[in-house]
Amino acid sequence: MNQVDALLQGDRLALARTLSQIENGTSESRSMLDVLFQHAGKAHIIGVTGPTGSGKSTLVNQLALAFRQPNGTNPPSRVAILAVDPTSPFTGGAVLGDRVRMRDLSGDPGIFIRSVATRGTLGGLSMAAAEMVTAMDAAGFDVILVETVGVGQTEMEITRLAHTVLLVENPGMGDDIQAIKAGILEIANVICINKADRPGVEQTERALREVLDMNSVNPSTGGSFHHFMEDENQDAPPPTGSPAGWQVPILQTIATTGEGISQLVQSLREHYTYLQNSGQWKSNESKRLRRNLESLIREVLFQTWLSRMNPQEYDQALDRLFTRSVSPFHLAEELIASDFASKTPSIHLK
Amino acid sequence: MNQVDALLQGDRLALARTLSQIENGTSESRSMLDVLFQHAGKAHIIGVTGPTGSGKSTLVNQLALAFRQPNGTNPPSRVAILAVDPTSPFTGGAVLGDRVRMRDLSGDPGIFIRSVATRGTLGGLSMAAAEMVTAMDAAGFDVILVETVGVGQTEMEITRLAHTVLLVENPGMGDDIQAIKAGILEIANVICINKADRPGVEQTERALREVLDMNSVNPSTGGSFHHFMEDENQDAPPPTGSPAGWQVPILQTIATTGEGISQLVQSLREHYTYLQNSGQWKSNESKRLRRNLESLIREVLFQTWLSRMNPQEYDQALDRLFTRSVSPFHLAEELIASDFASKTPSIHLK
Repeated sequence: MNQVDALLQGDRLALARTLSQIENGTSESRSMLDVLFQHAGKAHIIGVTGPTGSGKSTLVNQLALAFRQPNGTNPPSRVAILAVDPTSPFTGGAVLGDRVRMRDLSGDPGIFIRSVATRGTLGGLSMAAAEMVTAMDAAGFDVILVETVGVGQTEMEITRLAHTVLLVENPGMGDDIQAIKAGILEIANVICINKADRPGVEQTERALREVLDMNSVNPSTGGSFHHFMEDENQDAPPPTGSPAGWQVPILQTIATTGEGISQLVQSLREHYTYLQNSGQWKSNESKRLRRNLESLIREVLFQTWLSRMNPQEYDQALDRLFTRSVSPFHLAEELIASDFASKTPSIHLK
Repeated sequence: MNQVDALLQGDRLALARTLSQIENGTSESRSMLDVLFQHAGKAHIIGVTGPTGSGKSTLVNQLALAFRQPNGTNPPSRVAILAVDPTSPFTGGAVLGDRVRMRDLSGDPGIFIRSVATRGTLGGLSMAAAEMVTAMDAAGFDVILVETVGVGQTEMEITRLAHTVLLVENPGMGDDIQAIKAGILEIANVICINKADRPGVEQTERALREVLDMNSVNPSTGGSFHHFMEDENQDAPPPTGSPAGWQVPILQTIATTGEGISQLVQSLREHYTYLQNSGQWKSNESKRLRRNLESLIREVLFQTWLSRMNPQEYDQALDRLFTRSVSPFHLAEELIASDFASKTPSIHLK
């Protein structure tokens, strides 16, 4: 049996190999992903984000164990964890995290753990993470927990591939943090205040609730923060943020003792049900896939255009730009018009 | 005299009108910017960033006044301030800030102040900010202070148009903040700890220095955070972060009394000289202009392609994507190949 078929039947070794090939960006991974994509789309993808030191990893471990419990008459969920750590060149975080986790969770064939720390630039990292989630999804995991370290853009980008975004906070976080994280708060669907046995939990909950309420009374700005990473002039991206009708719950947990974990799993499942029943699951997926397609089309068009461009001619054009003899906008139109004129005479730029 | 000529001669009213047209995205602003771009490129653009409450606005006012002092044998700099406030729909910050400032700085024809709070999405905001800086630059201001509120992506995007990034911190900021802000720290060229009369200034300086040192011993990751917002697969963007050879200074200021401000201005001027002497000014500008051009080319190519596409055919293709009959990558290649096949038979995709 080939690797892709083995993966589709849930073979862990085949999945592990495929994830490595994706991480290394091999050419086989490209064609494997074409097949895997067609079998994905079933898992509930949960992005877990929050600052370093908030206890995210312990919480994610506990969530995995809790999702392994039978849910009413349903069988336990199969759970995959993907830890995305752009800071690990500094801290070695992802690798260490894996080792600690192996001890707690190993032996359960219904749990699969993987970390990804780097693939070239961070843009590459978020693309690799998305592709790895597709592979885990195709391998039949019901729940995929994507854990990110809280570093601005990566966090935002990676949470965009999630259906449900869980934000982990701690008691006693000051106003400054909340100002910085206003953008993250807007995309959270469920919030938990971990280490809830520490002082200040009520104030933190109140502060979070205030920011949430402020967002909801300002519909014009609500959800606008995560529009930012769009390609310019593109349609609005899918509302991954709290949709009207979903009241973002703020829960309290103590991950080290497991307190509050089952309620948290309950909330995450309720959000899944909400997305399905309201039709937002389908519409969000469609918008996300369309955005993905169009960003690939942009890239292929540009690379094709660039390959047709005479390098010398392009360098000369760039020189005119660098000496400010022509503006970027004007030059872009000029270069494209001359390309179309020489090769596709029937096409006119608007 | 027309508005553009008046602006180029430093007419404040013409500049103010042009900035409003840019903010509103009028069609005249597009063609005016083509001209203004050709006269810009001389100003020292300084991005000032840091969390809400760090005293940024007061500091920026003081910096403007200090830049108005004669610098050795050089005449005083002409200073423009652009306050970019994506959160102002919540707080009214930008407008209020303007009013307070007017009182302090008005009457000096060498200082021009403007705020911009919104132009559609935040993506639009950062593009408007860049265009407004071009207009201020063309109007002959020597120093342009671009002040942003610390909200993740916008902050990063807007600081990318600066030659020098000044990060404002306060004493007593905890480890959490610094973890979150690792990405921002990497793009800072000068750091100041404002409100330096408060307790904890030494610890904060030590913590900042540690993160800076950590980054500099990891050249592979240094400056990688701000690569993230690139279009996928594009070349590495310009290193706006601390280049090898520039030691990021950490200064202490008390903006309310003006203490430390002249040393801070000195550091900002030294960074300008460093950029010029090391040749980085020119290479950073070239990379930035090229990136700007190529992102416009991507957009024009895509919009042109989309206008040639039969809408019904496109909807059918999207349906195949939504039902996962075909992967985004495969579909992108297919759609583009069929377009090229029908219209430009001589072109082959790689």
